[in-house]
Amino acid sequence: MRNIKLVIEYDGTNYHGWQKQLNAVTVQDVLENSIEQLTGENCNVTGAGRTDTGVHAFGQAANFFTQSSIPAERFSNALNSILPDDIVVKTSQQVEPDFHSRHCAKGKKYRYLIYNSQSVSAIYRNLTCHIPDSLDLNNMKEAAGYFIGSHDFSAFRASGSSVVNCVRNIRHVSLEHKEDMIVFEIAGNGFLYNMVRIIAGTLIEIGMGKIHAKDIPSIIDSRCREKAGKTAPAQGLYLVEVYY
Amino acid sequence: MRNIKLVIEYDGTNYHGWQKQLNAVTVQDVLENSIEQLTGENCNVTGAGRTDTGVHAFGQAANFFTQSSIPAERFSNALNSILPDDIVVKTSQQVEPDFHSRHCAKGKKYRYLIYNSQSVSAIYRNLTCHIPDSLDLNNMKEAAGYFIGSHDFSAFRASGSSVVNCVRNIRHVSLEHKEDMIVFEIAGNGFLYNMVRIIAGTLIEIGMGKIHAKDIPSIIDSRCREKAGKTAPAQGLYLVEVYY
Repeated sequence: MRNIKLVIEYDGTNYHGWQKQLNAVTVQDVLENSIEQLTGENCNVTGAGRTDTGVHAFGQAANFFTQSSIPAERFSNALNSILPDDIVVKTSQQVEPDFHSRHCAKGKKYRYLIYNSQSVSAIYRNLTCHIPDSLDLNNMKEAAGYFIGSHDFSAFRASGSSVVNCVRNIRHVSLEHKEDMIVFEIAGNGFLYNMVRIIAGTLIEIGMGKIHAKDIPSIIDSRCREKAGKTAPAQGLYLVEVYY
Repeated sequence: MRNIKLVIEYDGTNYHGWQKQLNAVTVQDVLENSIEQLTGENCNVTGAGRTDTGVHAFGQAANFFTQSSIPAERFSNALNSILPDDIVVKTSQQVEPDFHSRHCAKGKKYRYLIYNSQSVSAIYRNLTCHIPDSLDLNNMKEAAGYFIGSHDFSAFRASGSSVVNCVRNIRHVSLEHKEDMIVFEIAGNGFLYNMVRIIAGTLIEIGMGKIHAKDIPSIIDSRCREKAGKTAPAQGLYLVEVYY
């Protein structure tokens, strides 16, 4: 049995997220079906991150085991000839038998796109979060800086999630804008459920003046979900890279 | 009768271009139907530029006449509540009775997006032209500069088009890149049929080394379509702005 690692880009608009589920088409489903078509084997693909409905990926990582004789590097092209246009396998390679795309991940990088314009965008409608209000970018940048470092991010995870240890180490954040587009990036050793969308939603409320940038450290310290901003919409979020 | 000017953004992916035609859905069709639904009047919308199938617009301009009492500025919101998500009216305003969106246009700005990466993009598949070959950006920039000024652009128009005067004045070109994305912009007093796509296709061939940048002046002088590069695909093209 060989263990094959894939790096996958997808437009999440038409999928109910990554994770396989009943009565809904997911990226994992489509990928497993394509691999089965190719190898004739029953296939289980493990993804590094379970992106939600409408969330996109430039570089989701995944792995699966196969007995087929297809060279590892050929899987990308072979799968792309079967997959729909909105899912693309960028690379495929053989990895050690004990490689597990989720357990072995040392970190992840996410991007969140805010389209900051009075009118909604026809072109970016599924690829950005639209905010018509004017946003104070300097306050947003100041606030973003407070997330760097090791913190208990309980205040920035979806209520009801059951993870016990909520300490995560954020290594990098950036917030840039060009014309109407605000690009927020964040990288760290791991993320709680909905953490990036809650951070993005909090930054948006800071831009609007509803929350003060200087209050971020005390919101983090509170460990209380209600203190942070709303969860920003899924369609602005991209899983950019998984680090190993 | 009032004359109303609209500025319109659209994702051209699902339309057979701007211009009304039999047995195919176009942006003009959808817009006219929406205005008729709103005003109860038969409506004819005149667009500034006839974008092709798959071409996008951030700022197409158009105008129509109406006897309805709807305030001019309200048309944008009212139409957006009827229009599909991939067409958005950004602004609506009353203009002089003799305003004609095509005849009065003093110029236009177009953008062409090249996604320059080994693998195709799932996310940008309908919004860019994908070029896997490595491209020499310096040669492309040098070549782009030669288009500035007044020239007879017969070599850069679709063969078979019937316009007599092919002299156009290009005021501005730029070519920038960020990571995998190359953004080419061009503004001028007017453009021949397929002119921007042929210029973009020529720049791509220059990037690949198939055409020399220094040959652009003689290709322009030749007035011969065969000397220029191929017509680049529609999905990379955006009508950014119409100047009045």
